[in-house]
Amino acid sequence: MSNENIYNPHVSVDCVVFGFDGERLKVLLIERNITEQNELYNDKKLPGSIILQDENLDEAASRVLNELTGLKNIYLSQFRSFGGPDRTKNPRDILWLENTMQLKIGRIVTVAYVALIKIDRKIQVKYENTQANWYDLNEMASMNLAFDHAEIIKKGLDHIRHQLDVEPHLLFELLPKKFTISQLRILNDVVHQTRSDVRNFQKKVAQMSYLVMLDEVEDGVPHRAARLYKYKK
Amino acid sequence: MSNENIYNPHVSVDCVVFGFDGERLKVLLIERNITEQNELYNDKKLPGSIILQDENLDEAASRVLNELTGLKNIYLSQFRSFGGPDRTKNPRDILWLENTMQLKIGRIVTVAYVALIKIDRKIQVKYENTQANWYDLNEMASMNLAFDHAEIIKKGLDHIRHQLDVEPHLLFELLPKKFTISQLRILNDVVHQTRSDVRNFQKKVAQMSYLVMLDEVEDGVPHRAARLYKYKK
Repeated sequence: MSNENIYNPHVSVDCVVFGFDGERLKVLLIERNITEQNELYNDKKLPGSIILQDENLDEAASRVLNELTGLKNIYLSQFRSFGGPDRTKNPRDILWLENTMQLKIGRIVTVAYVALIKIDRKIQVKYENTQANWYDLNEMASMNLAFDHAEIIKKGLDHIRHQLDVEPHLLFELLPKKFTISQLRILNDVVHQTRSDVRNFQKKVAQMSYLVMLDEVEDGVPHRAARLYKYKK
Repeated sequence: MSNENIYNPHVSVDCVVFGFDGERLKVLLIERNITEQNELYNDKKLPGSIILQDENLDEAASRVLNELTGLKNIYLSQFRSFGGPDRTKNPRDILWLENTMQLKIGRIVTVAYVALIKIDRKIQVKYENTQANWYDLNEMASMNLAFDHAEIIKKGLDHIRHQLDVEPHLLFELLPKKFTISQLRILNDVVHQTRSDVRNFQKKVAQMSYLVMLDEVEDGVPHRAARLYKYKK
C-alpha cells in the first residue's frame, strides 16, 4: 500500500435537532454571517464543529451543541457520517471555515447526530455574532444552507421517521409534558406525513396504555379547553 | 474558537461482512502477522483501511473490501462511526499501522459498514501475506482482534438484528439461492437467538408469500432429502 493518496481530512460532528411547535416540525440552525467583497452574506448551518484531540465523537457532539445553543443533557444519537470530497467545494464555506477556525481546511468528514427535544427548551448562545433559531422544515428548499447540510437534515428526518416506526414512544420527546390528544395527532401526522381521521385517532389513543389522562384542561385557548394527557414510561 | 486542540485524525472504513455456513453466523476477517522482537504474532482484523483523497466513504468501503477479499458488488451499508482517541492505544496496532501504511498514525476515526453475503462467494486476496477467512462469531471472545474491532463487530451484529426485525427479507441474503426450510429456521434462530419449534416454524413459513417451493430436493445428504425453496422478491 503506497501512501501517496493518503490524506488527513478534518473530522467534525453536526447535530440535527428537531422540535415541534404544535403545528410543524422544526430544525435548530445557526445563522452564519459572512462578509464577501464587502457585502454581508447570511445563511444557515447545523450546530457543528471540528472534533478536538482528546474527546470521543459523542463527547464532541454534546460539547459543540452546548457551545452553539446552550443545550445540555440532550440525548444525541449518531446516525450517519458524510464524507465526500465535494462537501467543501463551495468557496464561501471554505472562506468561512478559514475565518472561523483560523485554519486551512481541506476535506471534512462529518459524523451526524440527531435529537428530538421539546421546543420550549432555552436556547442560549455563548459566542458573539452567533444566533441559533428554530426553522421550519417546509421552508428548507428556499433557505441557504451551508455545505451539504440540507442533505444531512433530510437523512436525519428519514432516520427519525424510521426510528419512530420502531419506537413510537419517542414521539413524546417532541411534545410538552402535558399535551392534548389533538397535539399528539397533529405531531403524528406531521412525522408520518399522513392525515388521520379525528375519530379513528381517538380510538387508537384509547389503546395506548402509556397515556395518562390528567385532571386538567388546557389553559387560555379561544376554543373549548381540551383535556390534558401525559406520557407514562 | 482557538485551534490549539484541533487535530487531523486519519479516517478509515471497516467492513463487517456476515455469512452463514448452515449452522452458525460467521464474520469475514483478515489475518494479520506482526513481527515483534523477532517473534511472529498473529491476530485478526476487519477488512478496512484509510480512505483516499478523492473517494467518498461508500467508494472507500467498496474499494477496500475488494482489495482485501476480492469481493465485488457487495451491498455495504454504513451503520456507525467509531472515533475515540483510545482506539489506537495498543502499541502493536500502532506498529502494524506504521509498517503497513509507511506513515505515522495518531488517531483514526473509522466509518463502519455492514454486509450480509452468501458464504460460498469466492474470497481472493490481492496482497501477499494477507489471508481473509470466515470466523465463527461464537469464538470471538477467544480471538485476538485488532483495535476496537470486537466492539465494531458486536455493534454490527446489533445493527443487522435490528434491520432484520424491520426488513425480514434481508435474511435471504445469507442463504444459498435454493435452501431448505430447515436451513431457514436454523438461520432465523441464530440471528434472533431463539429456538423455534419445528412445527410452529412450518406454519409461519406457510404464510410467507415470498417463498416459492421448487420442484427439487437437496442433493447428497445422508438423511431423507428435503424440498428446496427459493425467495421471490
